[in-house]
Amino acid sequence: LRFAGVHLIVDLWGATRLDDPDHIDAVLREGALAAGATILHGHFHHFSPNGGVSGVLVLAESHISIHTWPERDYAAIDIFMCGECDPAKAIPAIKKGFQPERVQLAEHKRGLIG
Amino acid sequence: LRFAGVHLIVDLWGATRLDDPDHIDAVLREGALAAGATILHGHFHHFSPNGGVSGVLVLAESHISIHTWPERDYAAIDIFMCGECDPAKAIPAIKKGFQPERVQLAEHKRGLIG
Repeated sequence: LRFAGVHLIVDLWGATRLDDPDHIDAVLREGALAAGATILHGHFHHFSPNGGVSGVLVLAESHISIHTWPERDYAAIDIFMCGECDPAKAIPAIKKGFQPERVQLAEHKRGLIG
Repeated sequence: LRFAGVHLIVDLWGATRLDDPDHIDAVLREGALAAGATILHGHFHHFSPNGGVSGVLVLAESHISIHTWPERDYAAIDIFMCGECDPAKAIPAIKKGFQPERVQLAEHKRGLIG
């Protein structure tokens, strides 16, 4: 089957440093580069000091987004990549950066064209 | 069950105006507002004249992203919203804006905490 891209839904539980937008930016950039992606644009919003972060990297091969709830040690990430990039290769940087106790993954193949 | 947010995966087939970043930006903003969201940041990248667009709106309630393949009349959208927002309410604006022949939806509840 041919398809447009792979969309990984990544949930982190028991994770750390979820209130640090600079750290989050650096971790996702490392993950994007490890997956072979080209970063076009990044934006990370810190809701309050010590609060959650929402952010995204727009890639030449789609995007990585993150939304964090530091008060629950929970982060919701999604990684969508098309072309030759493998979003699974971004996972080790994410695990190293946030040290989650548990990672939940789901995969969607987007744009299947048979 | 309590959960952090609802993540809609939306695929459009037979869709129009997928090579127009200003139109795409306007359509997603209309959808975000219809869902009750607050827009914090937007970025839309046009890969080439008449080519695909990759973009995102960062919301106070998470994000909307889009990646388009005008040569296939295909677009991959995801809408993640937490709090009181209902991402399904963004769908009518998306249908009106892109006139897809077919819409494929999948839903993930993110951050289920039982």
